[in-house]
Amino acid sequence: MSTTTPHIVVLGAGYAGMMTTKRLIQQLAPHEAQITLVNKHNYHYQTTWLHEVAAGTIDVNRSRIMISDVINTKRVHLVQDTVERIKADEKKVLLQNGELDYDYLVIGLGFEKATFGIPGMDEHAFSIQSVDTSRMIRDHIEYQFSRYKTEDNPSDDILTIIVGGAGFTGIEFVGELAERIPVLCKKYDIPRKKVKIINIEATPTILPNFDEELLEYAQRSLKARGVQFRLGTMIKEVKKDAVIVGDDMEEIKAGTFVWTGGVQANRIVGESGFELTKGKVNVDTMLRAPGHDDVFILGDCAWVMNKDTGRPYPPTAQIAIQEADVCAHNIKTMIQGGTLREFTFDDKGTVASLGGSEAMGTVFDGHKLYGLQAKVMKHVIDDRYLFLLGGPGLVLKKGKFRPF
Amino acid sequence: MSTTTPHIVVLGAGYAGMMTTKRLIQQLAPHEAQITLVNKHNYHYQTTWLHEVAAGTIDVNRSRIMISDVINTKRVHLVQDTVERIKADEKKVLLQNGELDYDYLVIGLGFEKATFGIPGMDEHAFSIQSVDTSRMIRDHIEYQFSRYKTEDNPSDDILTIIVGGAGFTGIEFVGELAERIPVLCKKYDIPRKKVKIINIEATPTILPNFDEELLEYAQRSLKARGVQFRLGTMIKEVKKDAVIVGDDMEEIKAGTFVWTGGVQANRIVGESGFELTKGKVNVDTMLRAPGHDDVFILGDCAWVMNKDTGRPYPPTAQIAIQEADVCAHNIKTMIQGGTLREFTFDDKGTVASLGGSEAMGTVFDGHKLYGLQAKVMKHVIDDRYLFLLGGPGLVLKKGKFRPF
Repeated sequence: MSTTTPHIVVLGAGYAGMMTTKRLIQQLAPHEAQITLVNKHNYHYQTTWLHEVAAGTIDVNRSRIMISDVINTKRVHLVQDTVERIKADEKKVLLQNGELDYDYLVIGLGFEKATFGIPGMDEHAFSIQSVDTSRMIRDHIEYQFSRYKTEDNPSDDILTIIVGGAGFTGIEFVGELAERIPVLCKKYDIPRKKVKIINIEATPTILPNFDEELLEYAQRSLKARGVQFRLGTMIKEVKKDAVIVGDDMEEIKAGTFVWTGGVQANRIVGESGFELTKGKVNVDTMLRAPGHDDVFILGDCAWVMNKDTGRPYPPTAQIAIQEADVCAHNIKTMIQGGTLREFTFDDKGTVASLGGSEAMGTVFDGHKLYGLQAKVMKHVIDDRYLFLLGGPGLVLKKGKFRPF
Repeated sequence: MSTTTPHIVVLGAGYAGMMTTKRLIQQLAPHEAQITLVNKHNYHYQTTWLHEVAAGTIDVNRSRIMISDVINTKRVHLVQDTVERIKADEKKVLLQNGELDYDYLVIGLGFEKATFGIPGMDEHAFSIQSVDTSRMIRDHIEYQFSRYKTEDNPSDDILTIIVGGAGFTGIEFVGELAERIPVLCKKYDIPRKKVKIINIEATPTILPNFDEELLEYAQRSLKARGVQFRLGTMIKEVKKDAVIVGDDMEEIKAGTFVWTGGVQANRIVGESGFELTKGKVNVDTMLRAPGHDDVFILGDCAWVMNKDTGRPYPPTAQIAIQEADVCAHNIKTMIQGGTLREFTFDDKGTVASLGGSEAMGTVFDGHKLYGLQAKVMKHVIDDRYLFLLGGPGLVLKKGKFRPF
């Protein structure tokens, strides 16, 4: 490492890490900073598309992008390695195969499954977390279909898919399943009515931050395509082939259980000594870790307060991308001098996909969108990110709505 | 059922059953016989392509044909049902959902796995037997790859695939695996060298009826693509995650075990009282069951003696199709009068696919073929059958080599 130019280390190539790196390249000249991006894989993936990989409606490769295809490797040193520990007091990161010293650190290590201590959740629940775990879900569902066709007197229960949690991922996932299951039924010669899709949620409603009218639309659309809802129902235990719910400990048998009901920061963050509140770090308005002005924590590892409501913003790709802008600006400012920027969220609206040509959400000033119109907007949102990341070429290659 | 025209019942829509039905339609006028074809599924499948389904190199639907697409349903009554018992003395067939009386019966119910009493074989071995069991193998292999990418500290052993038996199916299957595994490795980001393909065979040689030169070619080709052979090695026991071999009870760990080492007649045949010799019925030269002149047994349910060698012919699709000709002729003769025909096998040669563009075998007068030339001939053979079954349209739709 040079001793004259500051070294910026970005951990994780998710939405936050990728966009921070992009912005740093744009805003700093090569002689002003060295930049290193550390990631477990040599690819970046679209977390917001993983529910489609998990349902099997898109191929894995559609959801991932080689990092070197969109990050200028003449400017950024790419390190493919796994982070083991951050030693903030020594300004050091320990990797599985080495270590790095930093002057500025950006932590964008993403989320992992939060189990809330529910027995069996660790062992038996699948999670839509990475390319690998999402593909595992797809393969597991097909495996159950194959088993059903080859075992002697199989129970219909092995075809049942339970999705725990009716937040954004849970709802988008059951929407994809509603599209995928009829295709799988045809492929495996299994009558559609034998396959149950059950969404279980502890609170009385799906998608807590959405408008009532949109929620009704979503539920009607999903129910019409065979999704069953069990709202206000607490999961008490997860077994190999069943889920136990409610105070009367009702057992619902299923061949597949996917948990989308809770996420927390990558465990490296807590293990490295950063203080966690409900599983994530409360960062300051400049997005820095408390007590460490040289450490920024972004995306699913952090809670960022909404000063208007006094509650943290819900974690989305949109917010992670906006955080990257502020983080990159603030690092630049710390190097060049000037005033740091506070993070404020510019809500451009949110659209939830419900599978196939179904979607719903709000855009701009709260304008509601339904069905195909919403779906098109969803694709525009996805493509906008690809455009930011890799320009029109990437939109053409990986985009969903192809206007070119 | 009419009492005036004889009723011919064909059990099973494999190579033998389909071609017998086709020939009967051609050779008998509608007023001369009623024909009923009973099959578990509404589709016919190409058993000789199932190793490709199992490896994942072709899609399931490529290997199957709707029966009603190739059999004239004005002439033949199709019954989709499962045979439970044949009562030859009462000239009756019991189905899961009904029963049928016959005047002439054709049994083409195919094979099932012969385990030779090897412990664990029933529970833990997959078998390339039907569309469903073959797809199960494909799904199981991908499942192991997915597990490998998501479990903590997984052993490389779960990626190992052991194929028991180096007969025709075993060799063709490892050939397909040799092509498929690099593709899967790329898909799942797993280094090729971590995946072992091991072929275990009790006798000292692969493909017992082939010429020495061809066998050397096959083994060289397969070894070059990473297939390991353990010839002269007896399987003693099959466990969930391993196979025990040899007198020293060596344990070879594996995530997938596929048994191709033995087949026997569908169990319905023995359970219905037909005498079995090494798992199949020794039929007479007219292809009839001993003691039942109105019952013909074809394909993998029967042994047909080669009078020149005193040994039965090896069971192949080619022989099943030729048996169908003789069987149809003999039933026609029994109805119209005339002389029954004896079965003699017209060996048109045999080509074994070794995956990708690799193959080898003999044609016509023992002329040897290798590589692409052999592969083209293999496709010609496959297409010839499709042509017999459904004319040029079927070749175009499902054929492998498309000359049109």
